[in-house]
Amino acid sequence: MSAPRHRPVAVLGLGAMGRALAGALLAAGHPTTVWNRSPERSAALAGAGADVAGSAAEAVAAGELVVVCLLDDDVTRRVLERAAPALAGRTVVNLTNGTPAQAHRLAEWVTARGARYVDGGIMAVPFMIGQPGAFVLYSGAEDAFLDWRDTLEAFGDVHWLGADPGRAAVHDLALLAAMYGMFGGFLHATAMVRAAGTPVGRFAPMVTGWLTAMLGELPAMAAAVDSGEHDADGSSLRMQAASFGNLLAACRDLGVDAGLMRPVRDLLDEAVARGHGEEGLSALVGLLHDDVGRPA
Amino acid sequence: MSAPRHRPVAVLGLGAMGRALAGALLAAGHPTTVWNRSPERSAALAGAGADVAGSAAEAVAAGELVVVCLLDDDVTRRVLERAAPALAGRTVVNLTNGTPAQAHRLAEWVTARGARYVDGGIMAVPFMIGQPGAFVLYSGAEDAFLDWRDTLEAFGDVHWLGADPGRAAVHDLALLAAMYGMFGGFLHATAMVRAAGTPVGRFAPMVTGWLTAMLGELPAMAAAVDSGEHDADGSSLRMQAASFGNLLAACRDLGVDAGLMRPVRDLLDEAVARGHGEEGLSALVGLLHDDVGRPA
Repeated sequence: MSAPRHRPVAVLGLGAMGRALAGALLAAGHPTTVWNRSPERSAALAGAGADVAGSAAEAVAAGELVVVCLLDDDVTRRVLERAAPALAGRTVVNLTNGTPAQAHRLAEWVTARGARYVDGGIMAVPFMIGQPGAFVLYSGAEDAFLDWRDTLEAFGDVHWLGADPGRAAVHDLALLAAMYGMFGGFLHATAMVRAAGTPVGRFAPMVTGWLTAMLGELPAMAAAVDSGEHDADGSSLRMQAASFGNLLAACRDLGVDAGLMRPVRDLLDEAVARGHGEEGLSALVGLLHDDVGRPA
Repeated sequence: MSAPRHRPVAVLGLGAMGRALAGALLAAGHPTTVWNRSPERSAALAGAGADVAGSAAEAVAAGELVVVCLLDDDVTRRVLERAAPALAGRTVVNLTNGTPAQAHRLAEWVTARGARYVDGGIMAVPFMIGQPGAFVLYSGAEDAFLDWRDTLEAFGDVHWLGADPGRAAVHDLALLAAMYGMFGGFLHATAMVRAAGTPVGRFAPMVTGWLTAMLGELPAMAAAVDSGEHDADGSSLRMQAASFGNLLAACRDLGVDAGLMRPVRDLLDEAVARGHGEEGLSALVGLLHDDVGRPA
């Protein structure tokens, strides 16, 4: 390995994710210093070669790159405040779950202390870190990102989203929303099939194949959102709103709570009422966010 | 082709889907009689070799297999009532959108008139009929289904779901629910990304890749529903409920309506309150349908 891959790094926070991140850095050959409020979390990492710092400031002093993975934004602010005197010249990559507004505030605070700030969103569960399929979204100080990009690839594929430090959090949370939508739909479907007395295990390949086919619609829907031309493509919102009643009636008959589906019905009805009845599903985005495609 | 593939068939209802079905039967070489309330819909099919019936009864008299694809259950009942004297000995395959209860009622009514009843759910849009990826769910009279299976394959892959005539509708509507969940999540995600000023077209491949990876979770979730063992697998409902606040806060900051996401949050909160906090997402099915996994 070339010299830059051996620059010292630090990891603040050793929950399941923080431990996975520190393990990936150690495996990639970096001198790695770890810190956690409860020090017993660092035992296995120490055995794998990590230095264990007695304070967050000590860890920050040891690492040119400081990877932060703590409980939430409040904890992150408190920990970094205690380490503030050591921050100058460091690159802080904050992988703590948070909002765009939190990323903006922290970027400003870190930058004011002479460090570079990159925000990140991890699209993986801990055991996937460093494995195929894991990816991490980054935004913020681009020079810092490029400087440490090779190192960050130890966690998974990197997606750079630009200089706005909040953009990684927006995309992270948007992908989570997409995931919860899909899982919610699946769980509702599963409840219906189960209520009808059919084993769900046999339904899983059917729904997986179906959703895989339906994923093929997303690029066209995204293009429609960008262009504002919401072609119905044979299935208008008016038709979909009209046939949605069968789904809700079946749920009622089966004794399945339709709470996850009713907001979709409401949105379809609202779209028709606002004059979007002959458009396609992509037109619904305009009802979720004011700036897009609402009729005058 | 062998003789059975040339038995005469009829199609009642020539909306976009009915026309696609009749076209597929003609393309497969079946003598095909079509009927529609407004006869002008049959012109192109007549040009392709279809016989045009002057009444539904005439069409039913001409076809040993009667494929029904009408607006809804009410229209289907009225049309079949007028054709009732011709029904004896026929096989009715009803592909009209409907509920399980409607399928049960119609199966009873058709069977009482000496015909065999198969209910179906088409998992395709009209232009996909007969193309790779299209599939149709069937349930009802198994002997009739087996008798006509080769013919029905003209529409797309066939999935047989058993003798309960309502089962095709349950699975059809469950797959629609899964699709609406996924599309709803995608549209919400798209609204967030768009509100943050990012082109949605660049987000589409990212979300497609992410959802494709997340689809890999469905078989394990389905198995958990069947077994009742809802392992958290590193991400408990308690953790997910706690971190859901970031998503809603970001939506508020971005000016995005979180109406599609709030029911997911409510369900996570309810699951934690009911003692499922250490379980995984699959445990939510028990909250959607009473018979499953609710604690005593």
